[in-house]
Amino acid sequence: MAHAHAGAHPEASRIVPEPPSQLPPGAESLDVWGFRDSGFEVNAAGQVAFRGSRYAISGKAIPNLLPWAEGVLGVKLDAFDRNTPHYPTAVPERVANPGFEAALAARLSPARVSSDPQLRLRHGHGHTQEDMWAIKHGALRRVPDLVVWPEDEAEVRDVLELARVHGACVVPCGGGTNVTDALRCPEDERRSIASLDLRRLNRVLWIDATNRTAQIQAGATGLEIEEQLGRHGFTLGHEPDSAEHSTLGGWIATNASGMKKNRYGNIEQLVLSVRAVTPEGDLERPPAPRESVGADPARWLIGSEGQLGIVTSASVEIFPLPAVRRFGSVLFPSFEQGFRFVFDVQRSGVVPASVRLMDNLQFQFGQALKPAKTRLAAIKSALEKLYVLRVRGFEAESMVACTLLFEGSESEVAAQERSVYRIASRHGGMQAGAENGERGYQLTFAIAYIRDFLLDHWVIAESFETSVAWSDAQALCANVKQRIWQEHAKRGLPGRPFISVRVTQLYETGVCLYFYFAFHYKGVAAPSEVFADIERAARDEILRSGGSLSHHHGVGKLRQEFLPRVFSPAALAWRRKLKQAVDPENLLGAGNG
Amino acid sequence: MAHAHAGAHPEASRIVPEPPSQLPPGAESLDVWGFRDSGFEVNAAGQVAFRGSRYAISGKAIPNLLPWAEGVLGVKLDAFDRNTPHYPTAVPERVANPGFEAALAARLSPARVSSDPQLRLRHGHGHTQEDMWAIKHGALRRVPDLVVWPEDEAEVRDVLELARVHGACVVPCGGGTNVTDALRCPEDERRSIASLDLRRLNRVLWIDATNRTAQIQAGATGLEIEEQLGRHGFTLGHEPDSAEHSTLGGWIATNASGMKKNRYGNIEQLVLSVRAVTPEGDLERPPAPRESVGADPARWLIGSEGQLGIVTSASVEIFPLPAVRRFGSVLFPSFEQGFRFVFDVQRSGVVPASVRLMDNLQFQFGQALKPAKTRLAAIKSALEKLYVLRVRGFEAESMVACTLLFEGSESEVAAQERSVYRIASRHGGMQAGAENGERGYQLTFAIAYIRDFLLDHWVIAESFETSVAWSDAQALCANVKQRIWQEHAKRGLPGRPFISVRVTQLYETGVCLYFYFAFHYKGVAAPSEVFADIERAARDEILRSGGSLSHHHGVGKLRQEFLPRVFSPAALAWRRKLKQAVDPENLLGAGNG
Repeated sequence: MAHAHAGAHPEASRIVPEPPSQLPPGAESLDVWGFRDSGFEVNAAGQVAFRGSRYAISGKAIPNLLPWAEGVLGVKLDAFDRNTPHYPTAVPERVANPGFEAALAARLSPARVSSDPQLRLRHGHGHTQEDMWAIKHGALRRVPDLVVWPEDEAEVRDVLELARVHGACVVPCGGGTNVTDALRCPEDERRSIASLDLRRLNRVLWIDATNRTAQIQAGATGLEIEEQLGRHGFTLGHEPDSAEHSTLGGWIATNASGMKKNRYGNIEQLVLSVRAVTPEGDLERPPAPRESVGADPARWLIGSEGQLGIVTSASVEIFPLPAVRRFGSVLFPSFEQGFRFVFDVQRSGVVPASVRLMDNLQFQFGQALKPAKTRLAAIKSALEKLYVLRVRGFEAESMVACTLLFEGSESEVAAQERSVYRIASRHGGMQAGAENGERGYQLTFAIAYIRDFLLDHWVIAESFETSVAWSDAQALCANVKQRIWQEHAKRGLPGRPFISVRVTQLYETGVCLYFYFAFHYKGVAAPSEVFADIERAARDEILRSGGSLSHHHGVGKLRQEFLPRVFSPAALAWRRKLKQAVDPENLLGAGNG
Repeated sequence: MAHAHAGAHPEASRIVPEPPSQLPPGAESLDVWGFRDSGFEVNAAGQVAFRGSRYAISGKAIPNLLPWAEGVLGVKLDAFDRNTPHYPTAVPERVANPGFEAALAARLSPARVSSDPQLRLRHGHGHTQEDMWAIKHGALRRVPDLVVWPEDEAEVRDVLELARVHGACVVPCGGGTNVTDALRCPEDERRSIASLDLRRLNRVLWIDATNRTAQIQAGATGLEIEEQLGRHGFTLGHEPDSAEHSTLGGWIATNASGMKKNRYGNIEQLVLSVRAVTPEGDLERPPAPRESVGADPARWLIGSEGQLGIVTSASVEIFPLPAVRRFGSVLFPSFEQGFRFVFDVQRSGVVPASVRLMDNLQFQFGQALKPAKTRLAAIKSALEKLYVLRVRGFEAESMVACTLLFEGSESEVAAQERSVYRIASRHGGMQAGAENGERGYQLTFAIAYIRDFLLDHWVIAESFETSVAWSDAQALCANVKQRIWQEHAKRGLPGRPFISVRVTQLYETGVCLYFYFAFHYKGVAAPSEVFADIERAARDEILRSGGSLSHHHGVGKLRQEFLPRVFSPAALAWRRKLKQAVDPENLLGAGNG
C-alpha cells in the first residue's frame, strides 16, 4: 500500500545524550552505605563529624548528636567505645560450574566476569540491618558464585541462556540498596548462582523532547539519569532516598516511590513500557500514551523483585526541569495539628512536590544533627528558639516540623506557597523558613550513612514503612510506638527504644508512614535477631492497624511471611502459577516475593 | 497482645447509601442502542427527529441532517427508503445441559435463570457494526444457552462452580455495550454457555467520606453509580460515552477511559482494588493508598475481557461533586491550529476536565444535528455565522471546534478558563460560548443512537480509536483518512466515505484519536463484511503510523489478529500461559484477548 505519509506536527525531536560521567573505581563503599569519601566518624575531640565534601553537612562536627542520643536512648554512649566490625566476615565457598564459567568468559571479556570473594559478598546482600550485621559481625550463608557485568541487552540475553544451558541460575542486581533481603541467596540453592550486575547499562538511549519520553537503560542510577537528562533540560523527577545509588531497573523491580511523587508520580506512573529479557524470550511493546489491550506482561515485572525477568530498559515519561525550586518548613505545636495540616493540603488539591511531616522525636533528631555553630549563629539560634518556645508557646517535647519542596514555574510555586501557608496558619503552624526545609531534604542523603556509624557504636537501627488510610494513620503511629516500647521492655533491653515516624507521601486516600527504630545493644545476645523479632512485631501491629505490608520497600525475603495477610489464597496461587509457567526451571533464582 | 488502640483522626466515616432507582422492565432496547423511549426517527414531514424527552435534543426535528449527509456522502437519501431490519434474526439452537440447569434453578430463583431466545441473543453481542448487522440482517452463529442473574458474590461463585461441575462454561456480561465483539460466543464452543449477567449487583456498598473511597458492585452502571454517590455529595467522575448503560465491571474488564479523565483519571487509576471470583478462588486484597508487594493478580483483571475471572466489586477513589461545572467552546480556522492549541493546553499543566477537538467534518456534523430553529434564533444564528465567516475570515470547509468542560471550585475553574482561552487566542481561536460546548457534550449520549438509525437508512457506520504520540498524531489522522478513501474507491462503493476524527483525550505523551467512519451501502453485497475489511485496513494504517491497537475499546475478538503487532511473542506466551495456569478448563469461555 504505497502512499505518501504526511509529516508530523508538533515535530518529532529525538536527542541521543552523552553517556554519564564515570565513577572512579571504588567510589562506592562495599562494607557500608554510600560513597567511600563520605560518612559519619568520631573526631579527635570525641565529637561526631561527617567526612568529605559531598553534602551540606560534610566536613562539619555535630557536637549535639551523641549527648542527645544518650538522653533519648537512656544509656551512656562513649564515642570511643566501638563494636569493631569484622568485615568481610567469612565468604561462603563457591559452587563452581566450570562449563558455565568458560562459556561466560568466552562471551564476555574476562574483566566482566569475577569470582572475587568481596564482590561476590557485596552482590549477596542489600542494606537491611540483618544484611549489614551479617557482613560485619555474622555471616552470609550463601552468596553468588560469580558476578557478571553485561554491557548490552544481547549480553543479558546470552548470560541467561548460558545459565539455562549449564544448569546455573541468575540473580539480577542493580544498586544493591534494597532493604528487604532481596539479594540474599536462597541457602538451599545447589546450582551455581550468577549475579547479573546491570550497572554498565547506564545510558539514556534517547530523549524525545516533543512527546516528553525517554528510553533509559535499567542499570542507570538516579544520579546518572538526572545528569544525562538534565543536560537537555529534563528530569525524571524520581527521587527515592537511595537515588544516588539505586537504579531504574531496581526501582521497577521494587515498585519504588520517590519523595517528589506528588509532582512526578511513582515509578509505575513514570514507566510507560518495560523491556525485559526472560526465560521465555524478550518482553517488549511499543509505548503508547494509553492503551487497552489487556494486561501487559512486561508490567508484571513492576515489583517482581527479579523473579520473572531482567529489566533491561524502560521508556519513561520525563519533565522539563522546573524553573523554580523552593524549600519551606512549618512548625506545629503537635503532631495532630501537623497531620490535620497535611490532610488539608492534600484535600486542597494544591500539593507541593514534597510534603514531609516529622514527629517530635524526628524533629529533635534533626536539631541534634545541626553542625557546630559560630558564636553569632548560636546566639541567633538561641533567640529563635526562645521565640518559638516562649512567645509562641510551643513545647519542645511535642512540637513537630513539616518540610516542603515546591517545584514548578514561578507562578505555580507562588500559588502553592500561598495556599499551603494559609492552611498552615489555620492549624497553628509557624513558618520556619526555607533554610530549615532545605536542610531537611539534604539530610535525607547524608542520614543514610548514619546506620553503619551507629551500628559500630552499639546502636542497631532500621527503617520500615507502610501506607494507610487517612483515618487510620494516627492510630497506627500510636499503636506501633506502643508496641515497640512493649517489645523492648519485654526483652529487658538496655535503656529505651528510639521509635519515630514521619509522613513522607500524601495520597487522596491516605499516607505513607516511615518509621525509624533503634535500640542500644551492648550486652544483648544476637541483637540482629532481636531487632528482626521486634520489627516483625511492629509489622504485625501495622497490619492489625489497617496499614499495608509495604509502601515502597517491597517484600523480598524479609516480609514474605506476611503475604498471606495481604493476598487471598487464590491471588497467591496465581502468582506462584505465573512464576512456574514462565520460568519453570527457576532460572531467575532470587527466591523473592 | 492486648493493648488499647488509639482512636482515629481524621475520623473515619462510613456511609451505606440507598440502592439506585430501579429501571422499569424493558426500559433498555434489545435490538438497538440505548433506552427504548429515545432514538432517531423520520417524522411525517420526512425530517429526522429525536424521540422522547431524555436528552436536550429529544422531541426536536433535525431538518438539516439528511440534506447535509447527502452532500457529504455524495448520494441521494430518501427518508422513507428504509432497509427494514429483521430483528431478531434466527437465534441458534440451545446446547442444553439439564444437570447444570437443574442445579442453577435450585440455587437461584427461577426468575433469575432464563433461556428466552431474545435474551440469549442480546447476551451474545455488543454494539459493533458486525453485531448489529448480524441481529438485524444476518445471524449470530452461537449465543449463550442460558442467562443467569446472580444477586450477590456468593451466587456468582456458585454459578461458576456449578458450571465446572457440570461441564459448562461462563461468560460474564455487564451492560453489553462493548464494541469489540467481546460477547460473541466462540462458534466452536460445544459446552453449554451461561451468560452471567451482573446487572443485579448494582449497589454502592459503602462510601468512606474521609478517605474518599467507595466499594461498588461490578454490575452498577454509570448512571446508578452517580445516583448513589451523588446523594452523598460524591462522584466517581468516570464518564465513558456509554456511561448510561455500561458497568463498573465492564469498565474494568475493558480498561475503560472516561471523557473527564483529565480530572478524575482513567479506570485503572480510579480502581484501588478489585474483588473477583475465579476458577482458582476469590481474588481480594485490602486496598491501600499505595503498595509495593509485587503484582496484584486482581489487577490482571483490568482489561482481561472476561477471560480470567468475574469482577464482583471494586474499591475506588471518589471525589466531591464539583462546586462548578462550566462548558466552553472555541473555534479555530484549521485542525492544525486547534491541535497546536490542545498541545499547548496539555503542556501548560492547566487542563480542564475534558478537552475535545473536532475536525471540520465533525464540526459540520454537529451543525447539521442542530434542531430546527425559531425564526428569531435562525436570524441570530445566521448573523453569527456571517461574523465567523466574513469578519473573522474562517472557512466553512476548514474551521474546527474544540469543546471544553471545566469542573472544580469557582477559583479553579476561573483560573483554567483564563489559561485556556489565553492559549486559544494565541492559536487564532475564537470563543464560541458555553452553549455550544454543552451541546457538544450532551450530544455524545444522543449521538450513540444514530448508528442504528443510519443502518436502517442504508448507511453503515462505526467508530474506532487509538492513542498516539503528539508528534505522530496529525500524520496518523491524514494517513487513516487517505487510506479509507483509497479503500472505499478501490471497492467502487457508492458516493464518498464519511471519515472524521476528534481528539478526545490528552496525555503528557500523546492523545487519543476517535474516528467515525461510514458509507452508503445500498446495492453493496455483504456491507458489514466490506465495512469490517476497510476498518481492518484502517487499523493497519493506524499501527503503521505509530498508533496503538486500542485506547479504550479493547481487543475482544475484533482486534485479536493484531495482537502480535503490539506484543512480542514472549509477552503473548505469558498471557496464554497465565490463562492456562489459572483457568485450565477454560471455564471462562468468552475467547477474548
